Amino acid sequence: MEQRDIKEVVDNLNFLAEARDEIMIKNILVDLHPADIADLFHHINENSRDYIFNLLNADLASDVMAELDESARDDLIEELDENRLSEIVDEMDSDDATDLLSDLPKDIAKKVLDRIDVKDSQEVKELLRHDEDTAGGIMAKEYIAVHQDSTVDEAIQEVRKKAEEVEDVFNLYVTDEMNNLVGILSLKDLILAKAHRKVSEIMKRDIISVKTSLDQEKVANIAKKYDLVSIPVINEVGKLVGRITFDDLADVMEEEASEDIQIMAGITEEEEIRETSPFRIMRVRLPWLLVGFIGELISAYVLKKFELSLNQIIAAAFFIPIIMAMGGNAGIQASTTMVRGMATGEINMLFFNKRILREFFVSLFTGFILGLLILLTIVLWLNNMNFGLIIALALMVVIVNASLVGVIVPVILKRFNIDPAIATGPFITTSNDVLGLFIYLMLITLFLPYF
Amino acid sequence: MEQRDIKEVVDNLNFLAEARDEIMIKNILVDLHPADIADLFHHINENSRDYIFNLLNADLASDVMAELDESARDDLIEELDENRLSEIVDEMDSDDATDLLSDLPKDIAKKVLDRIDVKDSQEVKELLRHDEDTAGGIMAKEYIAVHQDSTVDEAIQEVRKKAEEVEDVFNLYVTDEMNNLVGILSLKDLILAKAHRKVSEIMKRDIISVKTSLDQEKVANIAKKYDLVSIPVINEVGKLVGRITFDDLADVMEEEASEDIQIMAGITEEEEIRETSPFRIMRVRLPWLLVGFIGELISAYVLKKFELSLNQIIAAAFFIPIIMAMGGNAGIQASTTMVRGMATGEINMLFFNKRILREFFVSLFTGFILGLLILLTIVLWLNNMNFGLIIALALMVVIVNASLVGVIVPVILKRFNIDPAIATGPFITTSNDVLGLFIYLMLITLFLPYF
Repeated sequence: MEQRDIKEVVDNLNFLAEARDEIMIKNILVDLHPADIADLFHHINENSRDYIFNLLNADLASDVMAELDESARDDLIEELDENRLSEIVDEMDSDDATDLLSDLPKDIAKKVLDRIDVKDSQEVKELLRHDEDTAGGIMAKEYIAVHQDSTVDEAIQEVRKKAEEVEDVFNLYVTDEMNNLVGILSLKDLILAKAHRKVSEIMKRDIISVKTSLDQEKVANIAKKYDLVSIPVINEVGKLVGRITFDDLADVMEEEASEDIQIMAGITEEEEIRETSPFRIMRVRLPWLLVGFIGELISAYVLKKFELSLNQIIAAAFFIPIIMAMGGNAGIQASTTMVRGMATGEINMLFFNKRILREFFVSLFTGFILGLLILLTIVLWLNNMNFGLIIALALMVVIVNASLVGVIVPVILKRFNIDPAIATGPFITTSNDVLGLFIYLMLITLFLPYF
Repeated sequence: MEQRDIKEVVDNLNFLAEARDEIMIKNILVDLHPADIADLFHHINENSRDYIFNLLNADLASDVMAELDESARDDLIEELDENRLSEIVDEMDSDDATDLLSDLPKDIAKKVLDRIDVKDSQEVKELLRHDEDTAGGIMAKEYIAVHQDSTVDEAIQEVRKKAEEVEDVFNLYVTDEMNNLVGILSLKDLILAKAHRKVSEIMKRDIISVKTSLDQEKVANIAKKYDLVSIPVINEVGKLVGRITFDDLADVMEEEASEDIQIMAGITEEEEIRETSPFRIMRVRLPWLLVGFIGELISAYVLKKFELSLNQIIAAAFFIPIIMAMGGNAGIQASTTMVRGMATGEINMLFFNKRILREFFVSLFTGFILGLLILLTIVLWLNNMNFGLIIALALMVVIVNASLVGVIVPVILKRFNIDPAIATGPFITTSNDVLGLFIYLMLITLFLPYF
């Protein structure tokens, strides 16, 4: 659906919901993909949304629910009774159901689990045990597994049996009698094989699988590196327990990129892009602003310490912004490349020394060029060579320092198990500001007699 | 392959290549996935790399080539003669071959095209006509299409016929006699259908396809929204011309996210994370540093204009960093959410007024809180209530202003067809610095008599 159409349909739906025009609403929704309905739900009034959602049958309602932003989903759920909620959860894939139930208050989740199909309930309970950011937390129980001694014909029967439960089938997982994963068979190879052949004869034996405890970002990196459409999940002893498909991995990739981008911008936790409450937005943005605030109070303190120098040469104050900005920008450039490479797995920490050296040279050349430019500016503008030389030197030192901080801090953070992306945000800017100003004012004060 | 293993294998390969130990090298490589070999190639010496690459047969060489970073790939290609290059290109999928050929000098590309298989050559020539950032630029010619009147059995024969050419098959595209795309049939449905049934009876008719000219980021957003494992590409008149698969879309998503993150950090074009040349790194980083540099020279000029005020109340200089940093941080937060939402398609421009209003309230509350804090600090530290009130007011105005600039600028840029991500980087920080300082110093000067 095009963006311009959405606005029109939203206005329409708001109007029809107001008028309680059930038939017309259903007429509009019948042709829409669940993802499009979810999209509309992000924009229509809350009252209309609750009303319209109740018109959907459980199957469609569960598909729409799975596509909603978390805040919109939570608002919607609050209005549902346990019967309706159980109906909807019953229709969901195990991973979506788990996702939803883990967000519900414990007592309600328990009631829902008691009402849904026993097998589904067991699966969800199993999935709920895993950390939500791991392979176990994002995997689904919907997959097709066949025994290695099965024939191709039997495997096709198994696909038929599970056709309704498992919507997207790309590969069959092949197991031994102990449920150990021993091979993979693509649907294409299954189609092309003779009916009486054994699965073990035609399956691929070099399997790429992940353990339940593996971090979801690493799972996504593995799938991306090897171009896997789905990835089987095994437990600690090698038994097949689940499957993660490309669409969930795309969600992980987008989520992790958004998270890095947000942290880079100094937004804690996750600000949902469609979040509507100013207070909730403020809550995720204020913490890093406060960190920056405190950091810059230290800058103010440093400046006050050098009040005498500033009083003697007020021109030194003119160049505070350029020193701060250049240190900040160079630091962010260095740290961003580092953090992004660590996230995508492109940077191998074992070659870290080379990276530091490279960054040192980059910042040295950059500092030299910008230093020359500021020298030129000051000579032409303020006609003061010595002052220009000091500012140029300070700029260069600040840029080299900020770049090295930018490349080293993410590594240190990672070693302490802190998200390195933090290093690309206000944290590094602020610490570079304080450090940069200190270096700058020290140099000014040191060379004051020569101005 | 684990990161720690890579280092060991790299050292090994360097040593073996030096010793020209072909057999041992082949022994090491035989068990590795092409993506792992590419990974090693990013770290081994250039000489070793050229030597080892020549040991690979054309099939493996083409797989490895397709997985390499662009700069590593270009270095490698320089050492190949046209015969070998043609052999390798001949083994590639049409999209990878196109990608590679578009980077070659025109005359060499032509020679290669003349040497490869005629059908492949025609396909690549067709693909080369599309802009590389569009659906046409990333699609491949490897897909399976069947006529709507075919039977299931005939469709399976077609899969068999194309099995070698099309490695991953998820869906069959169904066309009419004019090659118009009229339906889609999943491999799963094909397996489950009776052999004599007609394809048109079991295919899905509501198809989501994209046109060749659609921007690749939009293609990725569509595939992600509707959870599509592959997406058929049609030309302007609806004829089926190609297919884009999930793995290429994952590349697009990662590429676009990296690009946004880099632009946010003030890195132009694309800095490859594994880039080794300090000069090439500097070339992509320096432009925005220069923009920041010039911007902050304006800041220096503004400060000089207010030299008198600064001389009278030197304490005003102490708070330059906090004014700059808070404006910068708040602006980046606002613009980042905006830019990210525009990139993922979550923000609908038709509801833009609401967003501005929301951002206004967020920044007003935030400014108020931080204003109170700075007032408190100044009263306690410098014991000057009036001065504190002015700084607090200035901080609040600067934060509100920076936030509004942050939310509005991306939209303006987009309207002029400029990548809105630019608004999250040094551009917005710098302009907020200049504007913020000006507001700050104006207010200081205005209220100077009351200090």
